[in-house]
Amino acid sequence: MHVMIIGAAGMIGRKLAERLARDGALGDSPLGRMTLVDVVAPTQPPTQPPGAPEAEIRTADLSQPGTAETLVDLRPDVIFHLAAIVSGEAEADFEKGYRINLDGTRWLFEALRRAEGYTPRVIFASSIAVFGAPFPAQIGDEFFQTPLTSYGTQKAIGELLLADCSRRGFFDGVGLRFPTICIRPGAPNKAASGFFSNILREPLVGQEAVLPVSEEVRHWFASPRAAVGFCLRAATMDTAVLGTRRSLTLPGLSATVGEQIAALREVAGNKAVRLIRRAPDPVIDAIVAGWPRDFDARRAESLGFRAETDFAQIIRVHIEDELGGSL
Amino acid sequence: MHVMIIGAAGMIGRKLAERLARDGALGDSPLGRMTLVDVVAPTQPPTQPPGAPEAEIRTADLSQPGTAETLVDLRPDVIFHLAAIVSGEAEADFEKGYRINLDGTRWLFEALRRAEGYTPRVIFASSIAVFGAPFPAQIGDEFFQTPLTSYGTQKAIGELLLADCSRRGFFDGVGLRFPTICIRPGAPNKAASGFFSNILREPLVGQEAVLPVSEEVRHWFASPRAAVGFCLRAATMDTAVLGTRRSLTLPGLSATVGEQIAALREVAGNKAVRLIRRAPDPVIDAIVAGWPRDFDARRAESLGFRAETDFAQIIRVHIEDELGGSL
Repeated sequence: MHVMIIGAAGMIGRKLAERLARDGALGDSPLGRMTLVDVVAPTQPPTQPPGAPEAEIRTADLSQPGTAETLVDLRPDVIFHLAAIVSGEAEADFEKGYRINLDGTRWLFEALRRAEGYTPRVIFASSIAVFGAPFPAQIGDEFFQTPLTSYGTQKAIGELLLADCSRRGFFDGVGLRFPTICIRPGAPNKAASGFFSNILREPLVGQEAVLPVSEEVRHWFASPRAAVGFCLRAATMDTAVLGTRRSLTLPGLSATVGEQIAALREVAGNKAVRLIRRAPDPVIDAIVAGWPRDFDARRAESLGFRAETDFAQIIRVHIEDELGGSL
Repeated sequence: MHVMIIGAAGMIGRKLAERLARDGALGDSPLGRMTLVDVVAPTQPPTQPPGAPEAEIRTADLSQPGTAETLVDLRPDVIFHLAAIVSGEAEADFEKGYRINLDGTRWLFEALRRAEGYTPRVIFASSIAVFGAPFPAQIGDEFFQTPLTSYGTQKAIGELLLADCSRRGFFDGVGLRFPTICIRPGAPNKAASGFFSNILREPLVGQEAVLPVSEEVRHWFASPRAAVGFCLRAATMDTAVLGTRRSLTLPGLSATVGEQIAALREVAGNKAVRLIRRAPDPVIDAIVAGWPRDFDARRAESLGFRAETDFAQIIRVHIEDELGGSL
């Protein structure tokens, strides 16, 4: 089994590569080869089972003509296409967003179409940004895609291309609409959504964090570990059950900021909670008001995709995976 | 007022040009200039009000780089983008379908984005082919787009691009999901949907027509005259009420083949009905089974879009517009 991760230097790509290297397998198939691709060189996963080959590291820009053909020539059995620029950047730079998030995806799919006798599994990272307010209380599996950002538009187009190419048999695609990943590891993030992670991650290590919205704000979450699990499930599932509807809203946890804070109190005590400083920011408040709050993701659930079911779990995953298992 | 029709040699484009030439106006605005564009030279509309200038005829292929800029340089106030290859051809030739139906649309939108200080109204012809079975009994305005053809995929992508470009202020877009147009004028059509028109149009002039499906088959229709009315409404409406949701499922008439035949009997008598020859075709039956049957198009209705409400009306429109007003 040869697995390729395009966008392997990103947070999910890195964690997925680490998990595959640690397991030495994808599902029941031994991992014979792993190719990690990104515009900056992805890091070699730190853990390897004895005797397992090192991952092959490639620095390549999918949005450049010719790159996709070079990658497809390697004939991986499974391709995770996680490469994208994020929402804020795609909004700030229209041309760059379309070049990387749309054209890059199209070049990849086009190279796969042209490759004779080769129909790999392709997992495409989409996003709940394909949805745009106003929403019903819960967004169902048949709700329409009306993105409010260029990023969401590019992801929705990627989903359509994925479905058409899969229907035509060019490859075997699965699109995954990731929830907001929480707790994101690393430094505080300036993205509008950053505070959802900041208000947990920083207090867990004794640092102050800023909360710019009210505790009533509700959003849709899954842990980085759940995100890796979604990728593995999509790579190993029987896609015949998807029919022509190839993209899935993934399960997640609908929680308010107040529920996040209560979970922090449960796991780390009042001392941690006191490190959250309220600093209401009407700009962030307005942005977040347009975001989805809750989904009914029963289709993906019925297909075996699993996320956390309470926020204390999400915090404990972070402590186990990022903080060595204890505070 | 300068109006440009791209795809002016097609059936709707031709009828729209004729209507504009006859009215000498678009809504309340006198028609100062009309540019008709297609890959084959569009015909000059036959009726002109006294003193009105002739339409400017241009032969141009929107899918060729540079064409869009040339058209946008003319700075029309309203652009109808009706150019596309049809469903069957886009399915038979993947590359041609994407080049014309997707890239052509994208080049146009891109040229509009780059044109400084210019934000025309753009009416984009989409289709109910953006929807794919399985469906609810009635497809509502918030049902998701899961096309089952490359044509439908290209139209759904066009809708997403239209919404993103309109949101960003590059132009003022309206997407129109046309029902199946019935009665299509002209010679019998080999398209899978052709029989819906053939079984009415041919008997009305004493010719035999073939019905390949059962009388229970239900579909979604509007007349060519209604289609022109949709274009005019989209060109003159206040788009502020659309917000960021720029594409509309248009009103139509949900009718069975049996209801079509009953209307033919009402308008043209049993003699006409006897010219319909039953020749069941399981291939066409299977194709039609995947098509939408009924919509709840209340959003477009509330915005003043109007279609026929019974099939006898649709037949009478054909008699008035194509047969000189009588049988």
